[in-house]
Amino acid sequence: MNADVLNFEKAGGLVAAIAQDADTGDVLMIAWMNREAFEETVRTRRAVYYSRSRNRLWRKGEESGNVQEVKSLYVDCDGDAVLLKVKQIGGAACHEGYQSCFFRELDGDALRVVGDRVFDPAAVYKK
Amino acid sequence: MNADVLNFEKAGGLVAAIAQDADTGDVLMIAWMNREAFEETVRTRRAVYYSRSRNRLWRKGEESGNVQEVKSLYVDCDGDAVLLKVKQIGGAACHEGYQSCFFRELDGDALRVVGDRVFDPAAVYKK
Repeated sequence: MNADVLNFEKAGGLVAAIAQDADTGDVLMIAWMNREAFEETVRTRRAVYYSRSRNRLWRKGEESGNVQEVKSLYVDCDGDAVLLKVKQIGGAACHEGYQSCFFRELDGDALRVVGDRVFDPAAVYKK
Repeated sequence: MNADVLNFEKAGGLVAAIAQDADTGDVLMIAWMNREAFEETVRTRRAVYYSRSRNRLWRKGEESGNVQEVKSLYVDCDGDAVLLKVKQIGGAACHEGYQSCFFRELDGDALRVVGDRVFDPAAVYKK
């Protein structure tokens, strides 16, 4: 099966997964996948991660609707990381409402917000 | 100091570090940084990682000469990952001689090499 191309044992059953916008090339986020998440991602062509904090599968967009359609998938040289080129539905990958989770740039000793906010998280997640 | 913008405790003293080509947007590799690696990266503007297998700082390019000049650095929303936009000296980030470590694409159940080999690792590392 697909998952045999990966080495899940190296990091406690998980591989790193980077999501990149297929059109712009912007790096959107990094998360984790266990074997089940990887297999479901490949099968459904939608990004499924494994949440280390919640200890369960995390079907990206399950709350917000902002799913990631997987256009192509790459495996790194030592098989412990994958790169997904995705179409980010809703325009924002970050739960804080930014297009990318990497919306802060290091500027001297401080972080400066450089990303644009696409949505208001309070409205989307109804917390 | 700079490193206080990151949460090193979440994953045993390490944060994930993604290197992206500053010009092309290609994702080159993923590695890890401890606090010392991060601080040296910021100070020297050259990528320094922490090798989990060798348990020591890994100054990218120390053997091959293919250093990564850091053009800008971003921190993700929860502070446990950084994104480096780099100029990859030598044209290849991967120790196997490819521009990117993600040189294999999942194609059905198999991996297909899609990257171009920039150098012969046997010649560069003299193994």
